[in-house]
Amino acid sequence: MAILVVGSVAFDSIETPSGKAERCLGGAATYFSLSASYFTDVRVIAVVGEDFTAQEEDVLKRRGIDTRGLEHVAGKSFFWRGSYMKNLNEAQTHETQLNVFESFSPKIPVEYADSEFLFLANIDPVLQETVRKQMPKVRMVCGDTMNYWITGHRENLERVLKGLDGLLINDGEAKLLAADNNLVRAAEKILRMGPKSLIVKLGEYGATAFFSDRLFPGESKHLSLPFRAPALPLSEVVDPTGAGDSFAGGFFGYLASQKEVTLAVFKRAMFYGGVMGSFAVERFGTERLQKLTREEIEQRFALFRELSHLD
Amino acid sequence: MAILVVGSVAFDSIETPSGKAERCLGGAATYFSLSASYFTDVRVIAVVGEDFTAQEEDVLKRRGIDTRGLEHVAGKSFFWRGSYMKNLNEAQTHETQLNVFESFSPKIPVEYADSEFLFLANIDPVLQETVRKQMPKVRMVCGDTMNYWITGHRENLERVLKGLDGLLINDGEAKLLAADNNLVRAAEKILRMGPKSLIVKLGEYGATAFFSDRLFPGESKHLSLPFRAPALPLSEVVDPTGAGDSFAGGFFGYLASQKEVTLAVFKRAMFYGGVMGSFAVERFGTERLQKLTREEIEQRFALFRELSHLD
Repeated sequence: MAILVVGSVAFDSIETPSGKAERCLGGAATYFSLSASYFTDVRVIAVVGEDFTAQEEDVLKRRGIDTRGLEHVAGKSFFWRGSYMKNLNEAQTHETQLNVFESFSPKIPVEYADSEFLFLANIDPVLQETVRKQMPKVRMVCGDTMNYWITGHRENLERVLKGLDGLLINDGEAKLLAADNNLVRAAEKILRMGPKSLIVKLGEYGATAFFSDRLFPGESKHLSLPFRAPALPLSEVVDPTGAGDSFAGGFFGYLASQKEVTLAVFKRAMFYGGVMGSFAVERFGTERLQKLTREEIEQRFALFRELSHLD
Repeated sequence: MAILVVGSVAFDSIETPSGKAERCLGGAATYFSLSASYFTDVRVIAVVGEDFTAQEEDVLKRRGIDTRGLEHVAGKSFFWRGSYMKNLNEAQTHETQLNVFESFSPKIPVEYADSEFLFLANIDPVLQETVRKQMPKVRMVCGDTMNYWITGHRENLERVLKGLDGLLINDGEAKLLAADNNLVRAAEKILRMGPKSLIVKLGEYGATAFFSDRLFPGESKHLSLPFRAPALPLSEVVDPTGAGDSFAGGFFGYLASQKEVTLAVFKRAMFYGGVMGSFAVERFGTERLQKLTREEIEQRFALFRELSHLD
């Protein structure tokens, strides 16, 4: 099934202990789309400026990503400059230029109308809601958000949360959203806000999913227990940018590729999320995500299993 | 097979967000012994003062722990006062009285000489070495240490490390010991110091084991991959004191209870470590570890499997 994703397409200048990269192609929708493209058809909605050329668009097109929803406008694309010199788990932002993103109003091409899976990447919840409302027939909606929207745009965010099948955020965001420092209690509170599941991304510690019993009504006896997916211990994280969006792409891409979304499929999707995140951080920007093979992905999935399974 | 453990038996006064407990029975050897006692015979070597009465000793004896190596001397037992008010992952120490521990010189009862498994809990590496040398025929030796010995008693510690089958420390200690902030690289460096395996305790994120190919020579192709064991997400951690020692007790107790220590047995032992740690933190001090049943342990082991396994 096709996924429609709305989010940012951007240029990033990044410094990490492994080196520097200037104006890499980045943005949540880019990482998500490339990652999900190994599992299913992906359609992207975003806005770019004149600095986004055919060369950048080809990165997406080569992966079969439908870019008809990429709106080209006058001006410059969203730009972010950040570093991870002290701590690979937390970016320090040095510069953010919203540019063309400031007046972004998502428009959905008619060709996208039959998308059954919708991913609302981290953007203004008002825009997330706009897209959600135009896609009343989607089967499954997942989304992301960040501290900025949690603290400053709470009411708008809460309206989006009510309609989500899954919210994917990191542990700091989950604790902030629930105003609770215990992750289990925070998850219970967040599930009461509406999402049918909460996937907490824990960086080098993997990810933990918490389920509401509304997610898989037939399996409610198993939904009280969270599910833990590992991350691959790596001797070098070249660039952590986009790891969470790549996780989301692998997770949602795998879900959308399956006939039916069951609890067992959901768990495997968590592993594929970790797999795609582990590839993303091996090179700067989206470099590693551009040229994977499904075989490499399956081999790493097998590693994730061996890494965490008793037999 | 019987385990001999040398370490501290102490009284702890603890404050956590869940409440306070004054002068609980504590110490690494106490948590370790109680935890391991659900799997195999345990013999303890430690020193206690006059404040350690028959009532405290009965806590160990009721679990079948052999206390003939508990040396009673004049004075007071080791005492620690700490709290976890800001962060459940890190204790703040308010008071440490070494007391009778200051002049501790471990003596091994002849009845302990046939112990095949030896655990060197976190004490002065000179004492760890003293015990190790008196037990030349043990089949497997694991041990723990802490920042204080890593920074201030490095040479002594390095002698102990050379003889270990497994070193169990937390991630901060591992990074300090290796002087490397990346856990995978730190593990490689530590394994080169001597231990045949490194078990890194990650608190709420579980534990990761790294293997040298000297651990299970027949299975070297699988030893390049670490192994991740989960922790159980808990809505309340009443008292984290002793969680790491309880992990070690479950881990080593299970190893010692098996006919042969294989890679598969080692992996299950990591899960049992997590299981025992998860029980320990449910009550203040050792309360929860005193009255478990093997059935409760197996039920929780099943939860740990469901929490982390795809099928």
